[in-house]
Amino acid sequence: MTLPIRFEDALAARERIRPYLQPTPLRSYEALDEEIGAGIRVLVKHENHQPTNAFKIRNALSALTLLSEEQKRRGVVTATRGNHGQGVALAGRLLGVPVTVCVPVGNNPEKNLAIRGFGAELIEQGRDYDESLEVTKALVRERGLHLIHSTNDPAIVAGAATMSLEILEQAPDVEVIIVSIGGGSQAVGALVAASGLHPEVEVFGVQAAGAAAQYEGWRAGRPLVLERADTFADGLATRSCYELTFEALREGLSDFVLASEAEMADAVRLVLRTTHNLAEGAGAASFAGLRLLRDRLAGREVAVVLSGSNIDAETLRRVVNGEI
Amino acid sequence: MTLPIRFEDALAARERIRPYLQPTPLRSYEALDEEIGAGIRVLVKHENHQPTNAFKIRNALSALTLLSEEQKRRGVVTATRGNHGQGVALAGRLLGVPVTVCVPVGNNPEKNLAIRGFGAELIEQGRDYDESLEVTKALVRERGLHLIHSTNDPAIVAGAATMSLEILEQAPDVEVIIVSIGGGSQAVGALVAASGLHPEVEVFGVQAAGAAAQYEGWRAGRPLVLERADTFADGLATRSCYELTFEALREGLSDFVLASEAEMADAVRLVLRTTHNLAEGAGAASFAGLRLLRDRLAGREVAVVLSGSNIDAETLRRVVNGEI
Repeated sequence: MTLPIRFEDALAARERIRPYLQPTPLRSYEALDEEIGAGIRVLVKHENHQPTNAFKIRNALSALTLLSEEQKRRGVVTATRGNHGQGVALAGRLLGVPVTVCVPVGNNPEKNLAIRGFGAELIEQGRDYDESLEVTKALVRERGLHLIHSTNDPAIVAGAATMSLEILEQAPDVEVIIVSIGGGSQAVGALVAASGLHPEVEVFGVQAAGAAAQYEGWRAGRPLVLERADTFADGLATRSCYELTFEALREGLSDFVLASEAEMADAVRLVLRTTHNLAEGAGAASFAGLRLLRDRLAGREVAVVLSGSNIDAETLRRVVNGEI
Repeated sequence: MTLPIRFEDALAARERIRPYLQPTPLRSYEALDEEIGAGIRVLVKHENHQPTNAFKIRNALSALTLLSEEQKRRGVVTATRGNHGQGVALAGRLLGVPVTVCVPVGNNPEKNLAIRGFGAELIEQGRDYDESLEVTKALVRERGLHLIHSTNDPAIVAGAATMSLEILEQAPDVEVIIVSIGGGSQAVGALVAASGLHPEVEVFGVQAAGAAAQYEGWRAGRPLVLERADTFADGLATRSCYELTFEALREGLSDFVLASEAEMADAVRLVLRTTHNLAEGAGAASFAGLRLLRDRLAGREVAVVLSGSNIDAETLRRVVNGEI
């Protein structure tokens, strides 16, 4: 399988981020197992416990700890819908690196506030993630900032791989890992971790049906750019495939499924009801995938990643009222 | 001050529970500080990250690790509205002790399911917590079970004290700890921890106005039993003062405030909006107290305990819709 980083890169990333992050728990819930059924034993990876409520802080710390002193002094810039930006903002605060974060106009105000709360400069420009990414490129030229791409960076994938290293050490018998896919760092990170620890572990991906670029590219066997990315799971609202993750996803994923808005909202309610944890759409998409893959995974031990919990008040209100 | 246990008892409890529980994070949120205002720096103690989503697992492990082999073999019984029962059930599973849990008829079904999920036998009997407690006493006589009272046990208070030990070590400059009060173990535990580490730290208590036995007793200067305990914050729904905690609360609390149903529901929404963590009524009551005490705490560093997050789906629906 073509992986963009080596297993050793994941181990090295873990050493770099260890001073800043505790391992997150991997837990089972009887109520969840009962609702899923089919004899599946579900292990929930609580990335919602991270200091940014999402796994992305791993990626950001992995990338920022590799910068030179000169790069740190100049500062970094990134584009995001929220969780990656919160991760870079907090990593910058922890490491003393100035951070500029570009988000699309109309981005989730609660995520914007959290990014600013970690001390980053916030720039609202562009219609979606991909347009905000163009804004960052201008800032790289004009201000000499270092770009931290949310996916296309080996250090980012290595950071994400630390999550699956933990899963496979916490539950050596786990047979399946289900992750949601925006850019694909979680999924490729899981493939990297599995390659070094348990190559027989299967990795399944879930994307939002309203933002299905990775899925469509995976099916077509070639990278795609779509016109639209429309989902309440804003953490998954990307329109492109990414060079660094595409081949690994294509070769490595055991399967790739799409979750509708209703299926993701239902998964948010499932997580609330059975685990009493909050999940945003992107954090619940993996549970929606679990349900879609249920028959195929019967009787197996399945790790499902809960990342993150940054759902805004109005979206949560719509979800608990069944309006999504 | 009359404390029911010594500081050393808290340290010993910490050693006993250390193999089973990670320390929970103590975090600040810019969005929360902004909403609270008055220059207060709020530190959130994330007891919602515990494996039962509430601090009570500390108490249960502290108590069960002190049992003799004979007591462990016979098993334990307890009365609860939920979080204490989940704690005892999980502690029993971890330590191989059979657990029977008594809850009142009509108790929160999601909490009942979680208690059963940890392998405990559940008995639904009695109209409220205090009546369920009478049921446990019969089981002690009939089955030779050991009673784990949710409050009246030095080991329980010592377990709760481990939470404030962590707070005071994580934030040596903290000046105030705000806790919600059902039986008072958190509050007395905080007083014990402060007595050994930072005696100048002030502890404030918050109770639900609809279940105000501790508060009324505290004001009156003598233990009371009330007729009613009516609040959506089921974790605080007690009708009595408790022998072991009463004097320490009376002498030790800097102040004691009551939060209305609307104030607690508003605090659940505050925690959701500013931290993106789930809180049940009892878990948010401390934040309601923070708001009530705001002017008095201006400019200070205040630790507020978030415990727990076991809110059921229907109550959450009512809260996010502003129906409470």
